[in-house]
Amino acid sequence: MKEEVKEYIGQNKDRFVNELLDLLRIPSVSADPQYKNDVARAAEYVKGQLIAAGAEHVEVCKTDGHPIVYGDKLIDPKLPTVLVYGHYDVQPADPIDLWTSPPFEPVIKDEKIFARGSCDDKGQMYMHVKAFEFMMKNNSLPCNVKFMIEGEEEVGSVNLGIFVKANKEKLKSDVCLISDTSMLANDIPSITVGLRGLAYVEVELVGPNRDLHSGTYGGAVSNPINALCDMISSLIDPVTRKITIPGFYDDVEDISAEEKKAISEIPFDEVEYKRELGIKETRGEKGYSIIEQASTRPTLDVNGIKGGYIGEGAKTVLPSKASAKISMRLVPNQKSEKIAHLFAEHFKKITPPSMTVKVDFHHGGEPVVVPMDCIEYQAASMAYEDTFGKKPLPVRAGGSIPIVALFENELGVKSMMMGFGLDTDNIHSPNENFGIFNFLKGIETLPLFYKHYADLKKK
Amino acid sequence: MKEEVKEYIGQNKDRFVNELLDLLRIPSVSADPQYKNDVARAAEYVKGQLIAAGAEHVEVCKTDGHPIVYGDKLIDPKLPTVLVYGHYDVQPADPIDLWTSPPFEPVIKDEKIFARGSCDDKGQMYMHVKAFEFMMKNNSLPCNVKFMIEGEEEVGSVNLGIFVKANKEKLKSDVCLISDTSMLANDIPSITVGLRGLAYVEVELVGPNRDLHSGTYGGAVSNPINALCDMISSLIDPVTRKITIPGFYDDVEDISAEEKKAISEIPFDEVEYKRELGIKETRGEKGYSIIEQASTRPTLDVNGIKGGYIGEGAKTVLPSKASAKISMRLVPNQKSEKIAHLFAEHFKKITPPSMTVKVDFHHGGEPVVVPMDCIEYQAASMAYEDTFGKKPLPVRAGGSIPIVALFENELGVKSMMMGFGLDTDNIHSPNENFGIFNFLKGIETLPLFYKHYADLKKK
Repeated sequence: MKEEVKEYIGQNKDRFVNELLDLLRIPSVSADPQYKNDVARAAEYVKGQLIAAGAEHVEVCKTDGHPIVYGDKLIDPKLPTVLVYGHYDVQPADPIDLWTSPPFEPVIKDEKIFARGSCDDKGQMYMHVKAFEFMMKNNSLPCNVKFMIEGEEEVGSVNLGIFVKANKEKLKSDVCLISDTSMLANDIPSITVGLRGLAYVEVELVGPNRDLHSGTYGGAVSNPINALCDMISSLIDPVTRKITIPGFYDDVEDISAEEKKAISEIPFDEVEYKRELGIKETRGEKGYSIIEQASTRPTLDVNGIKGGYIGEGAKTVLPSKASAKISMRLVPNQKSEKIAHLFAEHFKKITPPSMTVKVDFHHGGEPVVVPMDCIEYQAASMAYEDTFGKKPLPVRAGGSIPIVALFENELGVKSMMMGFGLDTDNIHSPNENFGIFNFLKGIETLPLFYKHYADLKKK
Repeated sequence: MKEEVKEYIGQNKDRFVNELLDLLRIPSVSADPQYKNDVARAAEYVKGQLIAAGAEHVEVCKTDGHPIVYGDKLIDPKLPTVLVYGHYDVQPADPIDLWTSPPFEPVIKDEKIFARGSCDDKGQMYMHVKAFEFMMKNNSLPCNVKFMIEGEEEVGSVNLGIFVKANKEKLKSDVCLISDTSMLANDIPSITVGLRGLAYVEVELVGPNRDLHSGTYGGAVSNPINALCDMISSLIDPVTRKITIPGFYDDVEDISAEEKKAISEIPFDEVEYKRELGIKETRGEKGYSIIEQASTRPTLDVNGIKGGYIGEGAKTVLPSKASAKISMRLVPNQKSEKIAHLFAEHFKKITPPSMTVKVDFHHGGEPVVVPMDCIEYQAASMAYEDTFGKKPLPVRAGGSIPIVALFENELGVKSMMMGFGLDTDNIHSPNENFGIFNFLKGIETLPLFYKHYADLKKK
């Protein structure tokens, strides 16, 4: 199959690119109601391309928001089924004046396609459609395929959650395949094997029953802002930089020696990392490398803080209250709800007797890890090795993709995150781009995943 | 003189009250441009009343803002001169719906005058005009008097500062007399002998050069909000509650055993204090009483803090910066500028190497103390003893009145703060009121200050 896919791409690459450019010309900005019709147009375009590639049962499924495009090719119920997830909606293009070419008029420069959505996720999603087309044309589709391409990824995938829960039988599958992450470099393929989870809380500390004059009461009445700073400061040990909430690390799974070794092999330029962020030093948990700190270890960050007078000039208020938004990134096996409760319990305990505290929970998300010893990972790894000539590195992303936990919980399937974009593709920023090399390499690699996966499943 | 003033008040009290009510009917709200003409009307009214009482050289002096009313009675250059300071402008009346009677339609209920400005400061200022009238009518004015009644006290007295600096000769005097504070109770007269100073800074802590995704960078890149909390928390010792800035206490003058004893005699109900504030405990510097903590000891309070996302809901940002407004109340002999610099130096020193900090200085104010062994204090004390039948207690206020330091620095005079209002008069709040007892007691007491002051100066 290796040679056939290369040949097919060689014959069809201009058409592949042009089809993608047509999709990129549709401003399917899901967050902005004025693009509602464009979002619908993009769904119709995806529907047409799935049909043209050979998919069946293709439909644009209505939701309370933007539609989900479904299509499948079920060749044999005894064969494994791959569920392809992607999204056809894009981020808003603002700030528009920082684009060097209009965001919805794609141009090719330096072998890269510049347009909003070129990488995230129209380009990466479309690789799957073309890989499928190849397997259909080549009569080499080795398993069943189901496509679920949504239009609300950039606004939280709320209706996808409802759709998945309502269509478990229809979406039944053995593995979910997603290209919505990046790889390390064009010559360093990688597979995203872990995502951190999230516990997000909001705290409000209340002292006196009203704002006081800091002259009249200052010195005797404890100030909620000062007290909140004390409490927040105490949550991280100043020396080890470990989180001090009792029980916080109880369920944390240390990464394997094998993964630690793999991480150490990831090319990483600390000097450039700091230069690019404009910082003199990084500062994380003792005993871990920067990559480990930012992806394999749990964190506690204040995402917002507010209290007292924050306008121009000076006001001598001793405020009644102060509040903060605090999130903790979680790693396997931590549970979002448990950590939120541990936080709340501890935070109440350290509240000074002169104050009261309220802790509210925002949304959470569970950490995800793809075991490297499963056949799905092996199949992906073999596919990359076939097309890049080297084994991909397993990497963990520090962020959270809630849909991955959704698929695991609701459909019982692991997600293989085979991203072909680069961190320099400016996703969510002006001048988003996607290398033609990357686009075509994705189309070349994905059929090989299907092949190896089906072969390994047979054994 | 004791009997004559009583008799004069007995004969004229209804007129005194009615004249004050006329002044209170003028909505001289200095902060609100729509009352500009009313503020000017109030100045004219004060001018007329000063002339009627016997003052000379009375003029409404223009400034870049609201005018200052000046008038004097210079009887003999060899005699001491008293400078009377007061203000005819008032705070805005909002929230208007919480008033039980319209703020500028004064009514008398339970022997109290209810109206905006009844106590602060129209009522207290007008006591001086009527005390002066008595001394003129009674041919008993024992020294020269100068009146300086401004119209911008509630908006910061900026133009008063310019006026004072430009008219040092005209305002030359031996003591300044101010009734713009309160006394402890109608049967516990008190003199305000100290005011705290103020050093006010604004700090901004900057980490990475842009807002980051807390998933991608959290754990490795230090968060400016967390770091700001650490830094602020470290400024106060958790056990002694002393401020940890090196040199901060170097110039602090401990209060005398005599004043400590006087403070301990001030009636103070700690249970009621906490109940009224809605707090279970106070929390201040170890080894000092609540009154001492709130008036004789320096403080450090965060007046405002801001960082990251503070809107509704959750956002997982690791912000580029965080900022805070921090003020320190100062006590004699601390210097505002020196303390601000000590703060800045220390705050820069404790900034983590991964961040940079900027410290800006807002306005400051010097602490003030009136020595109890000066003849001004003795004269005031004797006056209260004459009219209340008991010695007044010396008290310090925790706040700052910058004009007092202004008079000391620019005119070289100490201010005697003889307030006749009560803390329950709701100044700056709805239903401001001033007891008729207090109004008349002020008129009765003030001439006795002049008498004792002139007598003591002769010796």
